[in-house]
Amino acid sequence: MRVHVALTPAEFPDAPLSGCVALAVDVLRATSAAVAACDAGCRRLVPVPDAAAAEALAARDGPDTVLAGERGGEALAGFDLGNSPAEFTADRVGGRTVVLTTTNGTAAMLTAARAAAAGLAALTNVTAAARWALEPGRDVTILCAGDNGAFSLEDTVCAGLLVARLLEAAPDAVLSDGAQAALGLGRHYGARLESLAQDSGWGRKLERLGRAADLAWCLRADVSQVVPVFVAGGFVPCRAGSTAAVGSESRA
Amino acid sequence: MRVHVALTPAEFPDAPLSGCVALAVDVLRATSAAVAACDAGCRRLVPVPDAAAAEALAARDGPDTVLAGERGGEALAGFDLGNSPAEFTADRVGGRTVVLTTTNGTAAMLTAARAAAAGLAALTNVTAAARWALEPGRDVTILCAGDNGAFSLEDTVCAGLLVARLLEAAPDAVLSDGAQAALGLGRHYGARLESLAQDSGWGRKLERLGRAADLAWCLRADVSQVVPVFVAGGFVPCRAGSTAAVGSESRA
Repeated sequence: MRVHVALTPAEFPDAPLSGCVALAVDVLRATSAAVAACDAGCRRLVPVPDAAAAEALAARDGPDTVLAGERGGEALAGFDLGNSPAEFTADRVGGRTVVLTTTNGTAAMLTAARAAAAGLAALTNVTAAARWALEPGRDVTILCAGDNGAFSLEDTVCAGLLVARLLEAAPDAVLSDGAQAALGLGRHYGARLESLAQDSGWGRKLERLGRAADLAWCLRADVSQVVPVFVAGGFVPCRAGSTAAVGSESRA
Repeated sequence: MRVHVALTPAEFPDAPLSGCVALAVDVLRATSAAVAACDAGCRRLVPVPDAAAAEALAARDGPDTVLAGERGGEALAGFDLGNSPAEFTADRVGGRTVVLTTTNGTAAMLTAARAAAAGLAALTNVTAAARWALEPGRDVTILCAGDNGAFSLEDTVCAGLLVARLLEAAPDAVLSDGAQAALGLGRHYGARLESLAQDSGWGRKLERLGRAADLAWCLRADVSQVVPVFVAGGFVPCRAGSTAAVGSESRA
C-alpha cells in the first residue's frame, strides 16, 4: 500500500486519486462540521463550490435542505448555518440534506470525490476514518484543505495521525515525503492537540473571531465513530467497520 | 520578526521577499554543493535555469568558469561537474566561478535572490546560515526547493532547524504555519538526521543511483561556517558573524 499526503491544494492535481481511497481533511472547521452533521443524523452532506450553487441546490430540493456556509471564518449571510460544528444539532440537520460551502474545505471534498472511494476525516473521527480507509486494501491519498491555498498545520497533524493509524495496520506501507512529514508532525503534536489553537495561524484567527469553543470542539481526537463517505453526489454517514453507509443510501 | 517557510515551489509566488532576508534550501544536493564549493574557495556561484544558459555564460566568461549541472540526480553530459558536493574540491573550483543548474535547487536560489538579502542554507551550514539571516534584523523567509514541485522532507527538516536557531535568538518571532510545521519536523528529526536517507523519497532515489556517499555528506549538521550570500548576480562565500562577503566582492 502507498500512502500520500497532499499538504496543500497546489498538490491536488498531482495527487493519485484513480483507484485510490481519498480522505479530505479540514480540521478548522469543514470536515469537523461534516462529522458533527453526520453524528447529528443528517441524511447527506453536499459540498458545493460557492453560495450561488448552494442556493440553487436548496431551491431545487426544497425544505429538507439546510444551507451551511462560511467565508473567511464568518457565516454566510442568509444561510441557515455557518461552519461551527456545534450548530449541526439533530434539531437542525436530523434527516435533512446539508448543502455546505466553505473557504477551503469544499475544494478538498470535491477533489476527494474523484477517487475510487472518498471519505471525510477530522481529528474528531481520526481513528474511524483510518479504519474505513484501510478496508478496501487500496492506496490511500489524504488531501489537506489548507488555508487559502497555503499550508495548514492542523490539517497536516490530522493527516499524520491518519498515517500513523494506517501504519499500525499496514506497517509495510510506502510513504511519500508528504506522508512522512505529516507522520512526523502527527507524532510531534499527537499528545498535545490543544496547542494547535496557538501554533496554527487559522487557530489564532478563529480565537480572534470569538470561536474558542469551536477550537475546543475540533481539537479533540476520536470523539466520533462516524465517517462521512461519498455516495452518488454527497457524503453520507458511515460507521467504521461497516462497509455499508448508515441510512437508506447504497454505495455508488 | 516574522518567519515564514515556503514548503514547496508552488508557495514561492506568495512568499514574502520584499524587505526580507531569504534563505534557499536544497539539502539533496544543490545548496549542500554550493556550501562545499564556497568552502573549497570558489570565487562565486551563479545559478542558471538550464544547461543552455550555463553554456552561454561559460562561453562568455572563459576558462575561469566551471560548469556544474544535474537533472534527475545524474550529472549533465559535457559539464565539468555534477551536483555531488565531494566533487567541489579546491583543485577544481578554487578561485573560479561555478555556474550551476540543477533540477530543483536553482529555482529556489533565483527566487531567494529577489529578496533584500539572500543566502543559501543546507544542513552542513545550518547554524551559520541562521546566524547570518538574523544579522539584518528583518523578517526571514525560507524557500524549500522541494522535489520536482512537490514537498521534500529533508528541505523542510533543514528549514525547521533554521527556525529553531532563529527562535533561540528571537524567541518572540511570529511563525507562519509553514514555519511552525518545519519547526516540528526539525525537532522530530534533529537528533537523527541520518534517518532522512531512508525517510526521504529523494534520499532513497540517490541511494539507488549509487550516491550513498553524497547522502552521508549532506545529512551532517554544522560542518561548515560558510554561507553563500547573493551579491550582484552570484553567491559568494561569507563567514557568519562577518557582514562582509569573503573575497574581493563588496555586498550589493
